[in-house]
Amino acid sequence: MATQGQVITCKAAVAYEPNKPLVIEDVQVAPPQAGEVRIKILYTALCHTDAYTWSGKDPEGLFPCILGHEAAGIVESVGEGVTEVQPGDHVIPCYQAECRECKFCKSGKTNLCGKVRSATGVGVMMNDRKSRFSVNGKPIYHFMGTSTFSQYTVVHDVSVAKIDPNAPLEKVCLLGCGVPTGLGAVWNTAKVEPGSNVAIFGLGTVGLAVAEGAKTAGASRIIGIDIDSKKYETAKKFGVNEFVNPKDHNKPIQEVIVELTDGGVDYSFECIGNVSVMRAALECCHKGWGTSVIVGVAASGQEISTRPFQLVTGRVWKGTAFGGFKSRTQVPWLVEKYMKNEIKVDEYITHNLSLGEINKAFDLLHEGTCLRCVLDTSE
Amino acid sequence: MATQGQVITCKAAVAYEPNKPLVIEDVQVAPPQAGEVRIKILYTALCHTDAYTWSGKDPEGLFPCILGHEAAGIVESVGEGVTEVQPGDHVIPCYQAECRECKFCKSGKTNLCGKVRSATGVGVMMNDRKSRFSVNGKPIYHFMGTSTFSQYTVVHDVSVAKIDPNAPLEKVCLLGCGVPTGLGAVWNTAKVEPGSNVAIFGLGTVGLAVAEGAKTAGASRIIGIDIDSKKYETAKKFGVNEFVNPKDHNKPIQEVIVELTDGGVDYSFECIGNVSVMRAALECCHKGWGTSVIVGVAASGQEISTRPFQLVTGRVWKGTAFGGFKSRTQVPWLVEKYMKNEIKVDEYITHNLSLGEINKAFDLLHEGTCLRCVLDTSE
Repeated sequence: MATQGQVITCKAAVAYEPNKPLVIEDVQVAPPQAGEVRIKILYTALCHTDAYTWSGKDPEGLFPCILGHEAAGIVESVGEGVTEVQPGDHVIPCYQAECRECKFCKSGKTNLCGKVRSATGVGVMMNDRKSRFSVNGKPIYHFMGTSTFSQYTVVHDVSVAKIDPNAPLEKVCLLGCGVPTGLGAVWNTAKVEPGSNVAIFGLGTVGLAVAEGAKTAGASRIIGIDIDSKKYETAKKFGVNEFVNPKDHNKPIQEVIVELTDGGVDYSFECIGNVSVMRAALECCHKGWGTSVIVGVAASGQEISTRPFQLVTGRVWKGTAFGGFKSRTQVPWLVEKYMKNEIKVDEYITHNLSLGEINKAFDLLHEGTCLRCVLDTSE
Repeated sequence: MATQGQVITCKAAVAYEPNKPLVIEDVQVAPPQAGEVRIKILYTALCHTDAYTWSGKDPEGLFPCILGHEAAGIVESVGEGVTEVQPGDHVIPCYQAECRECKFCKSGKTNLCGKVRSATGVGVMMNDRKSRFSVNGKPIYHFMGTSTFSQYTVVHDVSVAKIDPNAPLEKVCLLGCGVPTGLGAVWNTAKVEPGSNVAIFGLGTVGLAVAEGAKTAGASRIIGIDIDSKKYETAKKFGVNEFVNPKDHNKPIQEVIVELTDGGVDYSFECIGNVSVMRAALECCHKGWGTSVIVGVAASGQEISTRPFQLVTGRVWKGTAFGGFKSRTQVPWLVEKYMKNEIKVDEYITHNLSLGEINKAFDLLHEGTCLRCVLDTSE
């Protein structure tokens, strides 16, 4: 391509300061260095983690930065030594890398990869510990190793999943974060069996994906819990078949669920990021075997607690990141499942806007009616 | 037997009030009712749970009562409908029942049995919700469904494990609690694999049994952690091959262990009952897969806490009761393993006293040199 090896100037939404509107800027994107891939982002969605860092509550958040981590695009060029993708490949950037070489990847026990974490955690690239983004010579930090709120981004090669070129990028961009997180929490982390009772706290995108995962796993009772009763109608389409609004009860929600299920659920999922709800989710599990999975991300510094008796009597407390999916290996598999109509994706997209309307998209994220807003970066 | 159907008057150690010396009394033990078994206890050991309830800190502790739950004896008589044991059978009373009929027993997922819990939890027998013990007509509460600090006791038939009559009761009495708890925490709850790194917090009987379990499971590094460095010598015999004394370090013990093990251990076990140590035990686990098992029993009202990030990044928090062993089914199997020299038991017995010396035995329990003190009830 004509742009290969060149700095590309393109539009990106820059977060200059916490909690201030993002600014659509002309950003310079340097060519990929060794082990790096430059991607033309076509569609990006917004996720609550973007909003969390943008809000300034994330103590590891660095500004100015380019947020965004749920997207799809086409490889523009690759750096030295990159063999697994080439220009023209359709890809999904993966904030959870998969190098297949590190202790974590080789363990067979986790999807967490340690290879590029030391760089992506501080907003730079491994090769020279610098950013590939700049505005008028001033560097702009990367975010989560993806920075998809830009027409072009540079990521590590271990953070790119090559997908079926026939997949609609404006849909499968969602397979970069929220939907796999929910499905995988059920399939990989909890390993829900047929006939199980399941409680899902929070019916946003992740909670709905948990419901879908539970339904496909054969769970019989799928209880949705949310303080917004309007969410039940939508949730039914994803598999939720009972609904409880904590506001309708005078006692702790864990007691309500325990009574409703003759002792508690087999599996519970916290999809909000609220530490009190995480406790309720554990304590609504059945004695002897109930397993609770923390899916939501709590604000920094907050802690979970419970009586140890809850665990000694057989409950298990776990968590999940990207649903336990190995990103480069399994995102393409999820795309295939979508193409075969085995998992939903389209149904989570409630809004479509352009990159230029990103601040409006952030506002939508906090409204109960928005699940996922997909931004077209070409406009 | 001549005593069948009769009230038996025998010696027992009665706890009249919290924290006051036990009193050796002539106690009347009523005959077993339907579904009950009267056992002549020959040997009983002391466990920290006895001491905890005796101390008055257990809010569910009822006085006056007869404590004791780690013992062995011979069936004296059985009540109506009891078919699985008969007079003369050698048995170990099991505080964790196994009815094989309830939701818990049938689940295949837990060793917790719900059948007699509503009675044993409040110091009485299921049949008439009364005690079988009395002193001059005044009832004395049962404890944990076992009450083994007595020459005779009455238990539910679902709480009796029939064992090999050739097994030495003065040794295998230990298979009623501490040793199975430690072994099972490793074998059943954590499922430690060969080559694993293991951290054990607290090197009392349970901690040492965890070490033995880990060694037989093929763990490579077995790190014992205790504030009494003298315990390392003994612990080596049970499989501990590294020792850390938190007092020798200025930083939190979890950080010490994480550094020592290049990222944390695969499995950790808290065998003390201290909620701060429970947190340390979780946080010294390796990111991505480390599993921490709470084995110790914390004082009532205390809570465990941690940052949810610990779980979201792959650590698992569990607990165990009686090591996950199905009592009636597996205690006889453990006795067999002991008879075949496959598990240690004798090595935990550091003291032998008579029932009349029980207060001295409680004092010993708080000394670092005592693991298990076995009381001969005949003296």
